[in-house]
Amino acid sequence: MSSSFGKNLKVTIFGESHGPAIGCVLEGFPAGFAPDMDKVTAFMQRRASRGQAGATARSEEDLPEVLSGLFEGKTCGTPIAAVIRNNNTQSQDYANLNVCPRPGHADLTWNAKTKGANDYRGGGHASGRLTAPMCFAGALAKQYLESQGVAVNASICSIKDHQISDNQDEFGLDEEARKIIEEAQKAGDSVGGIIECAITGLPMGLGSPIFDGVENKLSQAIFGIPAVKGIEFGSGFSGTKLMGSQNNDAFAYKNGKPVTKTNNAGGILGGITNGMPVTFRVAVKPTPSIAKEQQTVDLDKKKDASLEIKGRHDACIVPRALPVVEAVAALVALDLLLD
Amino acid sequence: MSSSFGKNLKVTIFGESHGPAIGCVLEGFPAGFAPDMDKVTAFMQRRASRGQAGATARSEEDLPEVLSGLFEGKTCGTPIAAVIRNNNTQSQDYANLNVCPRPGHADLTWNAKTKGANDYRGGGHASGRLTAPMCFAGALAKQYLESQGVAVNASICSIKDHQISDNQDEFGLDEEARKIIEEAQKAGDSVGGIIECAITGLPMGLGSPIFDGVENKLSQAIFGIPAVKGIEFGSGFSGTKLMGSQNNDAFAYKNGKPVTKTNNAGGILGGITNGMPVTFRVAVKPTPSIAKEQQTVDLDKKKDASLEIKGRHDACIVPRALPVVEAVAALVALDLLLD
Amino acid sequence: MSSSFGKNLKVTIFGESHGPAIGCVLEGFPAGFAPDMDKVTAFMQRRASRGQAGATARSEEDLPEVLSGLFEGKTCGTPIAAVIRNNNTQSQDYANLNVCPRPGHADLTWNAKTKGANDYRGGGHASGRLTAPMCFAGALAKQYLESQGVAVNASICSIKDHQISDNQDEFGLDEEARKIIEEAQKAGDSVGGIIECAITGLPMGLGSPIFDGVENKLSQAIFGIPAVKGIEFGSGFSGTKLMGSQNNDAFAYKNGKPVTKTNNAGGILGGITNGMPVTFRVAVKPTPSIAKEQQTVDLDKKKDASLEIKGRHDACIVPRALPVVEAVAALVALDLLLD
Amino acid sequence: MSSSFGKNLKVTIFGESHGPAIGCVLEGFPAGFAPDMDKVTAFMQRRASRGQAGATARSEEDLPEVLSGLFEGKTCGTPIAAVIRNNNTQSQDYANLNVCPRPGHADLTWNAKTKGANDYRGGGHASGRLTAPMCFAGALAKQYLESQGVAVNASICSIKDHQISDNQDEFGLDEEARKIIEEAQKAGDSVGGIIECAITGLPMGLGSPIFDGVENKLSQAIFGIPAVKGIEFGSGFSGTKLMGSQNNDAFAYKNGKPVTKTNNAGGILGGITNGMPVTFRVAVKPTPSIAKEQQTVDLDKKKDASLEIKGRHDACIVPRALPVVEAVAALVALDLLLD
Repeated sequence: MSSSFGKNLKVTIFGESHGPAIGCVLEGFPAGFAPDMDKVTAFMQRRASRGQAGATARSEEDLPEVLSGLFEGKTCGTPIAAVIRNNNTQSQDYANLNVCPRPGHADLTWNAKTKGANDYRGGGHASGRLTAPMCFAGALAKQYLESQGVAVNASICSIKDHQISDNQDEFGLDEEARKIIEEAQKAGDSVGGIIECAITGLPMGLGSPIFDGVENKLSQAIFGIPAVKGIEFGSGFSGTKLMGSQNNDAFAYKNGKPVTKTNNAGGILGGITNGMPVTFRVAVKPTPSIAKEQQTVDLDKKKDASLEIKGRHDACIVPRALPVVEAVAALVALDLLLD
Repeated sequence: MSSSFGKNLKVTIFGESHGPAIGCVLEGFPAGFAPDMDKVTAFMQRRASRGQAGATARSEEDLPEVLSGLFEGKTCGTPIAAVIRNNNTQSQDYANLNVCPRPGHADLTWNAKTKGANDYRGGGHASGRLTAPMCFAGALAKQYLESQGVAVNASICSIKDHQISDNQDEFGLDEEARKIIEEAQKAGDSVGGIIECAITGLPMGLGSPIFDGVENKLSQAIFGIPAVKGIEFGSGFSGTKLMGSQNNDAFAYKNGKPVTKTNNAGGILGGITNGMPVTFRVAVKPTPSIAKEQQTVDLDKKKDASLEIKGRHDACIVPRALPVVEAVAALVALDLLLD
Repeated sequence: MSSSFGKNLKVTIFGESHGPAIGCVLEGFPAGFAPDMDKVTAFMQRRASRGQAGATARSEEDLPEVLSGLFEGKTCGTPIAAVIRNNNTQSQDYANLNVCPRPGHADLTWNAKTKGANDYRGGGHASGRLTAPMCFAGALAKQYLESQGVAVNASICSIKDHQISDNQDEFGLDEEARKIIEEAQKAGDSVGGIIECAITGLPMGLGSPIFDGVENKLSQAIFGIPAVKGIEFGSGFSGTKLMGSQNNDAFAYKNGKPVTKTNNAGGILGGITNGMPVTFRVAVKPTPSIAKEQQTVDLDKKKDASLEIKGRHDACIVPRALPVVEAVAALVALDLLLD
Repeated sequence: MSSSFGKNLKVTIFGESHGPAIGCVLEGFPAGFAPDMDKVTAFMQRRASRGQAGATARSEEDLPEVLSGLFEGKTCGTPIAAVIRNNNTQSQDYANLNVCPRPGHADLTWNAKTKGANDYRGGGHASGRLTAPMCFAGALAKQYLESQGVAVNASICSIKDHQISDNQDEFGLDEEARKIIEEAQKAGDSVGGIIECAITGLPMGLGSPIFDGVENKLSQAIFGIPAVKGIEFGSGFSGTKLMGSQNNDAFAYKNGKPVTKTNNAGGILGGITNGMPVTFRVAVKPTPSIAKEQQTVDLDKKKDASLEIKGRHDACIVPRALPVVEAVAALVALDLLLD
């Protein structure tokens, strides 16, 4: 039972949604780097609820306190620990989730795993709130990567069955997408979507064979984001519909270096970077918390029951998941770069 | 640089396609289990080339020799090492792959990673041949799981853009699929497809939070299979097109236990098994080795070049990948079960 | 670069002596256990400076704040994070340790490792202060072990060349030992000693072969305690002076179970527990911080220099290291027990 | 249950004393290195039984076959697997060790751990024979280290209570030591001793804080050598008898670099190398296999029993353990260097 990952850069996430605090520890971050804390805060704000279409009314400042690993404004080579207090909790909303688990949530499975000892309030450790420390850690990683010429950028491909056009707002949505989300919200329902991410600037030759390559590491980490149910690299699932001669990326010299003319491989061949952008797409399921009445079970009475979820929820988590995907991708990219 | 995975059950794969041998070491396998070696051989035969549509003409017996970990026919609690000799190699076919790397293969990236020291013959360590020891290890895991009431079964969903019908041959193909593969082969080209896998019989409560859950572990391992470029659990990417009220799996009591009425979650909630079948789909790209002329680079002359791949290849690797997906899924399932 | 250990129970330590806080994260602790927090505090008090012969005048309450992993007074199966604030720091005492490193301390090596970015104040992350969160984590582990019939107890064998008699005070010292320490303190010098520890109640059969056995795991963790420079199990170094017939522990049945008549093996055969107490001895070097003038180097001027260490130090760390050895041993024992 | 260690360089050992073969897999060895296989063989011969005082009459060539990881005489960046066949086994000598376990051996604990499924013949996986693949792996590591200016050398400090003089034979013994061993052998008994090892040429700044430093890693690995029961670094246990002012190593500039005038720290401060030789001493217990009658238990009849061990054994394992200590130290040193 563990909430950590990474080899050279280890990330450990702790905390429950309605406990005293959430936070993270980052081991292996390079020493001597001076992070811009205003940029860290700005990055974390991209994840916070602040008027995105369909975002929860739970508003927290979510400012992390750094407890260790920084000295005179620079990383000092030791574990970086940061905590974020939980201030704006309304735990009474979640009073009976260990009796009547919410469909699509981890209430039932955590109950089973811990034999009922889990902190069920707000989903506990499985809450989307745990993505805040991921973003803190990822913000540091992103800044360090930028200093090495590596960029990580994600965008929304689709909301429900709608492909996002170029005319996006600051949250990555277009008009039609906002409309879809708002209608879902009015209906007491929710929608999901697909996020695309690209890591550019990684040199050729990073990664390891077979079980420890770039796809392996990225997928292991990205599935750590709640609500993610699929990942594909390069042409991915649609690549299975192509002929080999179409899907193969032809090589050619460009500026004295071998590159590929297309990037169906998503920048990864045999688990190892080929110098092209590492690209992947992530399936984010519709938020399981919906206002509509749902069918569940009553674990005390051992019979079927119905449930109306109170509390504050996102009708669509995709815009807020955008920086989280970037954050986790940045952490993996830095781990690879440190090898 | 590592070719291993697993926590309680560790799997290490070694070998190059045209070196003396390939093999694996399995650490943590439960002691006292008597594997049926005929069934192991039969399982490995499912992966071997033996007349599937489009399969390579390279035919090897691929019988593993078990060097350790078995005593009087039973596992004795120590690392199980097995080797498979490489007998039927035609290395001359691959003479210049470190000069003119094959598109879609790992020739170029391994060359970069090892500064030219890689064994490029037949793809070396990145060859699909390395899936033979995966199948050996997975066959043992499958048998043990069966003794615990856990089954792992994969089937082909699609070849290229064709959905497989129920009328399948022993390799999981239908008539139309065989036709698509044969036409690709004739054209000197290749096709891919999608494989679906289900693990049934796992109890509720297996897995860990956030970065160490069932999706994380399965995806990390499954991307260890060459040519896999995507994975999705339950409703996956298509689930992003549903409303939350459609995608959530309602709970209900059945035979005194809480179950879900649908399985869009693929048996996993919050990274933890919910007692339903663990289901996932895997995107297998079209085999990158094709007979058609392709554009590549000449790394010696530092200029563009063209390439016609000789050697023996599969016009479609999907039928042979079927048992490999089962094998790797079984290894992960056993690792989870041992927690 | 990592400050963690453990497989089933992972312990991560963070913090610098003069930073905002120190703390730990414990992953994998069994769910549903209700720790007695008064006993945790009492255990941590054994480590605190409180009038032991030769203990530092730096006095901190060192009360940990638990941020996660506890719910309604019980462990809830998620990472347990705890922080201890650094309140009583006198950082000016350490102003130039990155220029003139203290002999016997990690100032120079951390400076080299981090290219000067280390937080040198009070030894930073290498400070003995980091044993406080170890004691917090170990206190939880000890309580859980007690509930399973496993006890961990350490005692002082010797201070300098004096063997401790049975007539010990609450800190494990006898009159002569106190005298030795006080004389060292008056002389501006320091002394070390040897600690013995026994883990009783572990069942036969715990541990793994070769590199992952009980001695491997215990030694790896115990050397995490600052100032530890040696460890021996059972008869250890003195066992090398015995004949095999003397050092071998004869087996015999007792109460229906095979036991050994002696315990020169320290409860471990082939890396695996044999049901007898696991016993080991730990060498604790004399505290490197001494008031006497010492020879060092000036890294700025690149020449030899002399140094008088100010600040508050322990003339003998052994009594305060006693609970730390118990804590770390308990963490390893619990990790083993959870396998 | 695992027989592996290492982070950047992973070593996995497999095999049983009387099974088909023993061997190892080395992951992460740098690519492009051309090992001198004659030197590898010569190093392994130092471990083989070949007329050392008191060595076993079991004589095997122990020539490893390299199955992977080498291409055209150079490492190719993939796992290096090597196997050594077991040819000269006399398994009948060990027929009843799972019924009447040998004192001082792992027979009983492995029996308990595996519920009787262990391969007890010759100690199975716990046999000293498993040090042969350690030596193969270590020989490669030593050669690579030498190419980087790092040397690893061990010598015998003492046999039983006798300090070895400078007048040593090729096995590290002096006349008195040979006499002690021969007398033990005649008496059907055995003796142990202490080995000292030094790693020279490592740069300052290698290692990690707290649980992942040089002492932690070396001790974890060295206890993987059968019969090792203690380890101490630098002045170790005897350092506890010194005053701090004596045990601290004064710094001084030499050839423009800060060095220490003494090396009581064994080259390690705060878990990190300080550029001085890394020195440690290892306690090797008297061989548990002795011809003298010993008291054991009969696990079938559940009563006390006596045992006379047949088979071929070493009256003193220390000379043959010498290269094993070097091998394991070299593996750890290379792992550190690759960080």
